[in-house]
Amino acid sequence: MNKRIKIFAPATVANLSCGFDVLGCCLDTVGDEMVISLHEDPGVKITKIEGADLPLETHKNVAGVAVEALLKKYDQPPGVDIEIYKKIKAGSGIGSSAASSAGAVWAVNHLLGNPFSPQDLVAFAMEGEKLASGNAHADNVAPALLGGFTLVRSYTPLDVIKLYTPEDLMMTVIHPQIEVKTSDSRSVIKTNITLKDGIRQWGNVGGLVAGLYTEDYGLIGRSLEDVIIEPLRSILIPEFNAVKEAAMSKGALGCGISGSGPSIFALSKGTETANHVATAIREVYDTTGLAFDIHVSKINDQGVKIIDS
Amino acid sequence: MNKRIKIFAPATVANLSCGFDVLGCCLDTVGDEMVISLHEDPGVKITKIEGADLPLETHKNVAGVAVEALLKKYDQPPGVDIEIYKKIKAGSGIGSSAASSAGAVWAVNHLLGNPFSPQDLVAFAMEGEKLASGNAHADNVAPALLGGFTLVRSYTPLDVIKLYTPEDLMMTVIHPQIEVKTSDSRSVIKTNITLKDGIRQWGNVGGLVAGLYTEDYGLIGRSLEDVIIEPLRSILIPEFNAVKEAAMSKGALGCGISGSGPSIFALSKGTETANHVATAIREVYDTTGLAFDIHVSKINDQGVKIIDS
Repeated sequence: MNKRIKIFAPATVANLSCGFDVLGCCLDTVGDEMVISLHEDPGVKITKIEGADLPLETHKNVAGVAVEALLKKYDQPPGVDIEIYKKIKAGSGIGSSAASSAGAVWAVNHLLGNPFSPQDLVAFAMEGEKLASGNAHADNVAPALLGGFTLVRSYTPLDVIKLYTPEDLMMTVIHPQIEVKTSDSRSVIKTNITLKDGIRQWGNVGGLVAGLYTEDYGLIGRSLEDVIIEPLRSILIPEFNAVKEAAMSKGALGCGISGSGPSIFALSKGTETANHVATAIREVYDTTGLAFDIHVSKINDQGVKIIDS
Repeated sequence: MNKRIKIFAPATVANLSCGFDVLGCCLDTVGDEMVISLHEDPGVKITKIEGADLPLETHKNVAGVAVEALLKKYDQPPGVDIEIYKKIKAGSGIGSSAASSAGAVWAVNHLLGNPFSPQDLVAFAMEGEKLASGNAHADNVAPALLGGFTLVRSYTPLDVIKLYTPEDLMMTVIHPQIEVKTSDSRSVIKTNITLKDGIRQWGNVGGLVAGLYTEDYGLIGRSLEDVIIEPLRSILIPEFNAVKEAAMSKGALGCGISGSGPSIFALSKGTETANHVATAIREVYDTTGLAFDIHVSKINDQGVKIIDS
């Protein structure tokens, strides 16, 4: 048994304004590459990492931990070698750790003949997220594994739903290369919210899901509102309001924080609008002197993809 | 100008477990009848009420107030006579006041040649709700007017969405004939909720909406969960837990409080299950000595209906 596969492990945007901790979607033009191989000698090894300064020790590496969670289901597990070609920057807020965890378990499952369901794979990949952030969240690994838009309806028990993705939706993402400490990003969030804000938020989640299924871009746009997290977290992101204003003025459907930031996403209808939004956002950030990346991507409805097998 | 119409003004179930203040759906076998006529002499008159002890004074009657809100859009409004044949019991929690408000404005709009949109009609009918409860809520008038399942995405501005209704969904409702004071029903609700409960609730709203569009009855069932309001309000409803247990044991998809109670709804797939659920619920309530009504209804995807014109 010597099997080998090269995959694309996509970046993802979690939360999507109203859907804190439950919604996410998958990108197509931003992601890592990974080479995964199976062999007979047991043990999971990270044999190579390029593009990032990440630990090679299996139990300290999110991909290693996620694959070990999968292999625990076997009495006599195969050995797995993992090469990671990192292109998503760590701490960007577009699911860097999730791409590694999700990509690794997807590839191993594929090489084993797909014994596990997508939902199983989400659970394995969540172990990587737990290592990365201390919190086994699924809102990045779910869209990376299932593709398109996903909803984590529940964690106990885990219930992940793939939603419908309208054809013309396009994502523009700016990654300001600043470090936002996870502890800061968490400490601004309050344990309690008002019922009134909760009602507004779940009204918007309902509206966004309905908008996706009916391809009602106007409704999608109206629903991309976050009255709970964005007002608190956006203060950690330089020029957040100016970026949002620029994006909306160019016709974006909505604009918000990607995951816990610092990346900012804008969702648009059509490539042309998404490109105009990118230009407008770039102009805002050009004035700051900060380094940044901008990505324009269609929604990747497939998730992890095989590059070479 | 002398025009007259007789309509069916449907009962409705608001909240639907996870969707407090935003979700609702329309019933088919329970509702009032109303006769609305237009004439040239200005003024709105409640000319007849049967089946309930409700005020005949226009400004104290929810239908009168709702129609006056509509007629304010006219410089020279026509006169309107309203007859109400009340069959939904007041205080039942299945939208008794909403049926009157919604039915009246729907009928007047119809007789005027439909100048107003469904969303406009919701806004007019909400004035009736404001009179009835002090709160201009839309979660009963929206499904009464639009039919099927509805989402009030936002109140400011008002944004009401008609969702998709799977064919086989059936509602069983028990109305225990006890009085739950609105003040009690409100005072048990807290102003603040935990973010954790909020996340669970909006995950479920997303799941329920996705379940409706994909006709995924299992997902609909799993999403019919309320971790915020039901634990507090259910203590005001005798045998709530026993009713829920009985409904679920007979295969109901979910079971919860209708609006602010005391009615309890159970959603099922198919008529047979809905009838079994009704029998099981009846057995629970037969032991209490309390008077009650039980209704089994398909979801009314049309809303207000013309009986005679």
